Amino acid sequence: MVSALYSNLLGDAEMAALMGDAAAIAAMLRAEAALAHAQARLGIIPEEAAAAIARAAETVRPDPVTLAPGVARAGIAAQPVIAALKQAAGPAADWVHYGATSQDIVDTGQMIQLRQALELLRARLAGLAELLALKAGEFQAQPIAAHTRFQIAAPTSLGAKIAIWRAPLLRHLDRLDQMLPRLLNVSLYGAAGTSAALGPQADALRSAMAAELGLGAPETPWHTTRDGIAELGGWLSLVTGALGKMGADLVLLAQSERAEVCAGIGGASSTMPQKSNPVAAETLVTLARLNAGDLSGLHQALIHAQERDGAALGIEWALLPGMLERAAASLRIGAELVQSLRADPARIAANFTADRGRMMAEAAGFLLARDMPRAEALMIVAEALRALQADAGLTLVDALATLAPGRDWATLLAADANLGQAAAIAATARDPAP
Amino acid sequence: MVSALYSNLLGDAEMAALMGDAAAIAAMLRAEAALAHAQARLGIIPEEAAAAIARAAETVRPDPVTLAPGVARAGIAAQPVIAALKQAAGPAADWVHYGATSQDIVDTGQMIQLRQALELLRARLAGLAELLALKAGEFQAQPIAAHTRFQIAAPTSLGAKIAIWRAPLLRHLDRLDQMLPRLLNVSLYGAAGTSAALGPQADALRSAMAAELGLGAPETPWHTTRDGIAELGGWLSLVTGALGKMGADLVLLAQSERAEVCAGIGGASSTMPQKSNPVAAETLVTLARLNAGDLSGLHQALIHAQERDGAALGIEWALLPGMLERAAASLRIGAELVQSLRADPARIAANFTADRGRMMAEAAGFLLARDMPRAEALMIVAEALRALQADAGLTLVDALATLAPGRDWATLLAADANLGQAAAIAATARDPAP
Amino acid sequence: MVSALYSNLLGDAEMAALMGDAAAIAAMLRAEAALAHAQARLGIIPEEAAAAIARAAETVRPDPVTLAPGVARAGIAAQPVIAALKQAAGPAADWVHYGATSQDIVDTGQMIQLRQALELLRARLAGLAELLALKAGEFQAQPIAAHTRFQIAAPTSLGAKIAIWRAPLLRHLDRLDQMLPRLLNVSLYGAAGTSAALGPQADALRSAMAAELGLGAPETPWHTTRDGIAELGGWLSLVTGALGKMGADLVLLAQSERAEVCAGIGGASSTMPQKSNPVAAETLVTLARLNAGDLSGLHQALIHAQERDGAALGIEWALLPGMLERAAASLRIGAELVQSLRADPARIAANFTADRGRMMAEAAGFLLARDMPRAEALMIVAEALRALQADAGLTLVDALATLAPGRDWATLLAADANLGQAAAIAATARDPAP
Amino acid sequence: MVSALYSNLLGDAEMAALMGDAAAIAAMLRAEAALAHAQARLGIIPEEAAAAIARAAETVRPDPVTLAPGVARAGIAAQPVIAALKQAAGPAADWVHYGATSQDIVDTGQMIQLRQALELLRARLAGLAELLALKAGEFQAQPIAAHTRFQIAAPTSLGAKIAIWRAPLLRHLDRLDQMLPRLLNVSLYGAAGTSAALGPQADALRSAMAAELGLGAPETPWHTTRDGIAELGGWLSLVTGALGKMGADLVLLAQSERAEVCAGIGGASSTMPQKSNPVAAETLVTLARLNAGDLSGLHQALIHAQERDGAALGIEWALLPGMLERAAASLRIGAELVQSLRADPARIAANFTADRGRMMAEAAGFLLARDMPRAEALMIVAEALRALQADAGLTLVDALATLAPGRDWATLLAADANLGQAAAIAATARDPAP
Repeated sequence: MVSALYSNLLGDAEMAALMGDAAAIAAMLRAEAALAHAQARLGIIPEEAAAAIARAAETVRPDPVTLAPGVARAGIAAQPVIAALKQAAGPAADWVHYGATSQDIVDTGQMIQLRQALELLRARLAGLAELLALKAGEFQAQPIAAHTRFQIAAPTSLGAKIAIWRAPLLRHLDRLDQMLPRLLNVSLYGAAGTSAALGPQADALRSAMAAELGLGAPETPWHTTRDGIAELGGWLSLVTGALGKMGADLVLLAQSERAEVCAGIGGASSTMPQKSNPVAAETLVTLARLNAGDLSGLHQALIHAQERDGAALGIEWALLPGMLERAAASLRIGAELVQSLRADPARIAANFTADRGRMMAEAAGFLLARDMPRAEALMIVAEALRALQADAGLTLVDALATLAPGRDWATLLAADANLGQAAAIAATARDPAP
Repeated sequence: MVSALYSNLLGDAEMAALMGDAAAIAAMLRAEAALAHAQARLGIIPEEAAAAIARAAETVRPDPVTLAPGVARAGIAAQPVIAALKQAAGPAADWVHYGATSQDIVDTGQMIQLRQALELLRARLAGLAELLALKAGEFQAQPIAAHTRFQIAAPTSLGAKIAIWRAPLLRHLDRLDQMLPRLLNVSLYGAAGTSAALGPQADALRSAMAAELGLGAPETPWHTTRDGIAELGGWLSLVTGALGKMGADLVLLAQSERAEVCAGIGGASSTMPQKSNPVAAETLVTLARLNAGDLSGLHQALIHAQERDGAALGIEWALLPGMLERAAASLRIGAELVQSLRADPARIAANFTADRGRMMAEAAGFLLARDMPRAEALMIVAEALRALQADAGLTLVDALATLAPGRDWATLLAADANLGQAAAIAATARDPAP
Repeated sequence: MVSALYSNLLGDAEMAALMGDAAAIAAMLRAEAALAHAQARLGIIPEEAAAAIARAAETVRPDPVTLAPGVARAGIAAQPVIAALKQAAGPAADWVHYGATSQDIVDTGQMIQLRQALELLRARLAGLAELLALKAGEFQAQPIAAHTRFQIAAPTSLGAKIAIWRAPLLRHLDRLDQMLPRLLNVSLYGAAGTSAALGPQADALRSAMAAELGLGAPETPWHTTRDGIAELGGWLSLVTGALGKMGADLVLLAQSERAEVCAGIGGASSTMPQKSNPVAAETLVTLARLNAGDLSGLHQALIHAQERDGAALGIEWALLPGMLERAAASLRIGAELVQSLRADPARIAANFTADRGRMMAEAAGFLLARDMPRAEALMIVAEALRALQADAGLTLVDALATLAPGRDWATLLAADANLGQAAAIAATARDPAP
Repeated sequence: MVSALYSNLLGDAEMAALMGDAAAIAAMLRAEAALAHAQARLGIIPEEAAAAIARAAETVRPDPVTLAPGVARAGIAAQPVIAALKQAAGPAADWVHYGATSQDIVDTGQMIQLRQALELLRARLAGLAELLALKAGEFQAQPIAAHTRFQIAAPTSLGAKIAIWRAPLLRHLDRLDQMLPRLLNVSLYGAAGTSAALGPQADALRSAMAAELGLGAPETPWHTTRDGIAELGGWLSLVTGALGKMGADLVLLAQSERAEVCAGIGGASSTMPQKSNPVAAETLVTLARLNAGDLSGLHQALIHAQERDGAALGIEWALLPGMLERAAASLRIGAELVQSLRADPARIAANFTADRGRMMAEAAGFLLARDMPRAEALMIVAEALRALQADAGLTLVDALATLAPGRDWATLLAADANLGQAAAIAATARDPAP
């Protein structure tokens, strides 16, 4: 988790609350309550015991600091939570956690938390996609230089750039839909994963508990096959990665020498009064790189020994909440940036002017090739580019007027006339998000 | 790629061929041929030119070593390949790579390779799932101690263990089905991603080229949104991770002190004649850890600047073939291991005997609790365990016979009688893979 | 940082305090005070101003939560701290942070924290090395089976195993000595790294400030060359890695089937009363894997653009405190484990018996080869091993007595007689740590 | 290793040869020869046997492809090499690999390779530092805008920028000196690490073998404590990271909109004739990110179980050669870039002009504050900046001439007059590398 000092820069308060200690404890208690209810319904434990357990689970809220030594002793957070629940459950204590194992409760609790956390991310993702759609529309026809390998390439539109930032977000929404049924499952399989202590109605019990919690109930235990968690980590890093790309682009677009697009409130310098730093955009890159790193850890934890591997579980517990918080922070910051995104058409125009039409060289070649062999056309363009190199006052239009006269080069090589499908790409963003 | 010396240990010849230089060059040439065909069909280039290009693309096979300096100069593999194709295409040279950009060809070529590579992995994955189903059936009722946190926990069946190895593989097949339509796309968007040089029929052209290659044709360029590649990396690491878990388990099951299950031909020691090393099982762990590491790199490459980022593309080119080869190696080795997997029931029985019934302690507690408060039951079990601690000749059955007489403890605590749903879990493996 | 719930399992309170928000704020304020002092001494700012700044720096303790929005706006923690200091400094405010840049203060503050943090780690490392030396001595001659590739190999001594755990720790102490002068430097180079605003006495000023803080003062700015931080990360991961190896070994030694060595208080299961989980040893593995992962992030941050790269700095801020805390936790847990480490000679002996002398096969071959060609000797050993395979009651001593009679095989193949340099290796641990 | 197609872009032929299969096999054979020699000298094996082994080791050169199946079976490369040596050694076969274990030979062979590999890297590192020193001198006084957070900050000199690229290289040379004695050691400890089969003269034997190979000979086995390898990985990634920073800077300096500094031969585009891509500089970033990723894997391999862990060793074998090759490639490419580095003073001057003096705002504030309270000075500067914002034709000099008349602002705010210690920093590069 992010420390308080950095919590607004790198963190997200809403997600921190959903994935924090208090929420984790509450979710584990809710898992125990759901287990007790289901067991009572199936006649495995007395109705009154279940009611007492549920009441206790709703009211007892042990302090994480107090539980911490117990977590360290047991190596799993559920145990001191169960102990606190038993104490609060009075005579029903004997029926608390009946037949389950600690990992059942930790995993189920986590799924309860994840359902909410992923709802938050879905909403933010959809919201950001909508904001991007608006901006893609707004700048659909705004020409801007595309840059390949950090060099001016050929014109595109700002709307197309924005639509391309948006495209992966829609895929991420699809991925989320496909992932959720694999992920959001109850865990109830007992000590060795055989459900032996859960009795002959184990399947029914698991389904009942799952239904109560709105989770799935796979027959095969997933105590040790953690592909759901690793897949989730991958999804989170795909999300922050997509935003990281947008952040990197915004940093570059806002460079002093370009200043074509600006988003967010620039950060002030402690000593240079003229500065306006693209802090938020940079942060998107930071968050993406951090999640890309942690993802590796979650995949290392797939190598989960035998029927429970504390070393592997510890990796998950250490990394997953932070990855979720970064995804949430990234989407929140991304939305702030996009909402405030504005272009400076004058600067863009000046940058086109400064390029002197070089970015139209490819287009010129294709235009010439309509009337001559392609190789000959490319030779004329090359000569024109050499002329521009020699004379800093010359434009490609001028040079071609001399070298290949008889065409209205100014019109032919206007940026607007050479945007290809840029506006159509921008228009794809009009399609509603799934 | 794996060096020759380690190619059988860590590599896979079949995948190395599919993802190697020769295949990459051939795939790029095939992409160019498909582009030319599609352009001819739409009347963009002459039919004869397309035919000449296709012929050249089928016959020219430039040596990767010869191309290497050109790749380094251009920073992209397509350029020297295109140069070689132009040279081979004679008078049709002018129509080679018409309107496309290098990345279109590299990316499309890679997708041509990936389609085959992923078919190979799918077949191996399905094959391995089938082998595991057979073995899960064979050992459905074979009791074996489950180990949580490296300690004997409670009995399960070997079939259940095997079915749990298998379960994620089925999910991986589902994930593959869901991923492929996002991944296997043609790239044809031109220099700035606007398709400007591809002319007004760009959409139709892209679709025609895609159809020829059996790929999808998204409207929005994916030159710079590399979530498809990163998702693929995640999938590959999920696959090796699942096998890595199986490998780790096999290594532990085959320890000298347990020797309950054995798979593969043991590796000999250079100096210790008694040894039979679980080399193949260890290798599954190695491959999983390597892919988990490389996955991070692919996600770092999501931060792809502007309309083409050579630094980010280089990461993909360096990592992806190796990850595919490791997945292929892992599945091949996994299949060899599972095919030769055999249990030693005598050793398993001896290990049960050596445990003296301690792993039945949970079961004993539940049995006693039928007739007395749970807390009291647990106290009796605790006393029994202390008795075992004090007397190395005592079993739990003996101890309970004294402490809680009147029950047939030997029958009640027999491993077979306490497997819960283990056999049912093993039986889930009977369901056919998707 | 670790959340409260997991703070005792994965965290370390002492290091968390040294690297926490309050300490970071105090250290930045101390950096500003040292700067003011040095400037006053050199006549750059008035003495009274420096005194007022120092007083304010000692008394003002802004709440991290209050500063968080300012940190997010500026993208760097120093700015709101400086603002708070200016407010507290009254009329001296104009002289606060005079000529410096935010990063100077953040970096210098971090070095003030790191000096203490690394003293803590050094002390714990030296302490652990001493504990290991004691245990290596205690078990110098205790035979135990060495395991290569998870199979019994040949005998060694427990003392040698422990000495091998200790050996890298001594190297880590050497590495620390070599690293510190590269790392513990003041930063004072101003906005563009040229010290322009610091005036003509910039060098003298930097040295004076450094002297006050007990840090070095390199001439060349290190705002953007972060090898010191990345090297520190590597060192921290080497430390946790060495402990992770010890943890993995302890987990394996304590397996139910071996139970040869035991360390720490076993963690209880929530449902299996017989269990005693090696939680602390597993945690050493978790911490090592987490630091190995984060190290990659710190090295990604070496790619630091131009004269300040907020995206790269954010990675450092997010990762370094956690890596330090894990190193501290690992050393604390390691010491607890080693202190409580005890062997079970009876179990070790029983495991030797169960091996039936197979681990002496290499030794037998060398003994026989004294009197016959090596190839012939190895054939006899191979035959003996086959005999053991066929007859589960046979030992290698018995088999060789038949196949190669006339030698006192029981004496020759006694474990104690075949420990090679094990005791000498254990004895190396007697050398004092540097 | 890098495939042929990418070998010039991402690889290095010289290092690939040093770390390739043929070199590895030769090094292992040399290790066996050195062992035999040392054993003969100590009377452990016959002189003639040693001579025959040495002869065979020099002549036999098994094909890696032929050895590959043996490597996969044994899980270690030494075994088939030893088998080939035995076959070639004729009657001396019995004395080949006498008392050693496979890992002794693999590790010693690797150290033989690493000594050469690290000499190559040291030479390249020193050479690059020298080239940078020359260029730092050449551009010592060339003003250029510093950029913090991708925004123009204040002036520095190009020489200072270059000296800052160089500074970490000198530290890397120091680190190398400190690391080598820890790293370059022989391994000779036998099967269980106790040297039991090496006989009573094991220490003397190890020292003799080490002396023959120019390696160290630690008393304690390092079969399982792999901190030397992990530290080496860290060093390699520090090297590529430093170059990655230089590469990122060069990419940014060469952007079309800046074009202030140019290095290397620009890569051509397949379709855009005006382009000159900074391929080599981008590649430095790629190589740095790849090594940063692999470093994590080497640290994961520190968790090395018991007396030999094949899974952990496999990670080292897979990653280390590639990391070395990337470091070599990075230094080679870096040298090419620096050698050809040239500045465009006209473009730099134009960029200063375009900034209109805003980057002098900090300096203006300090100048004004000589005669008035700092807060008042900053208010004047802020007003001047607002004037520049309103009037795109205005410069800071003009604005201040109006707002704070009576000073020669043009002279005071000239870039050359505000470089602080930039030239001195550049001059530090004159100090000879260690």
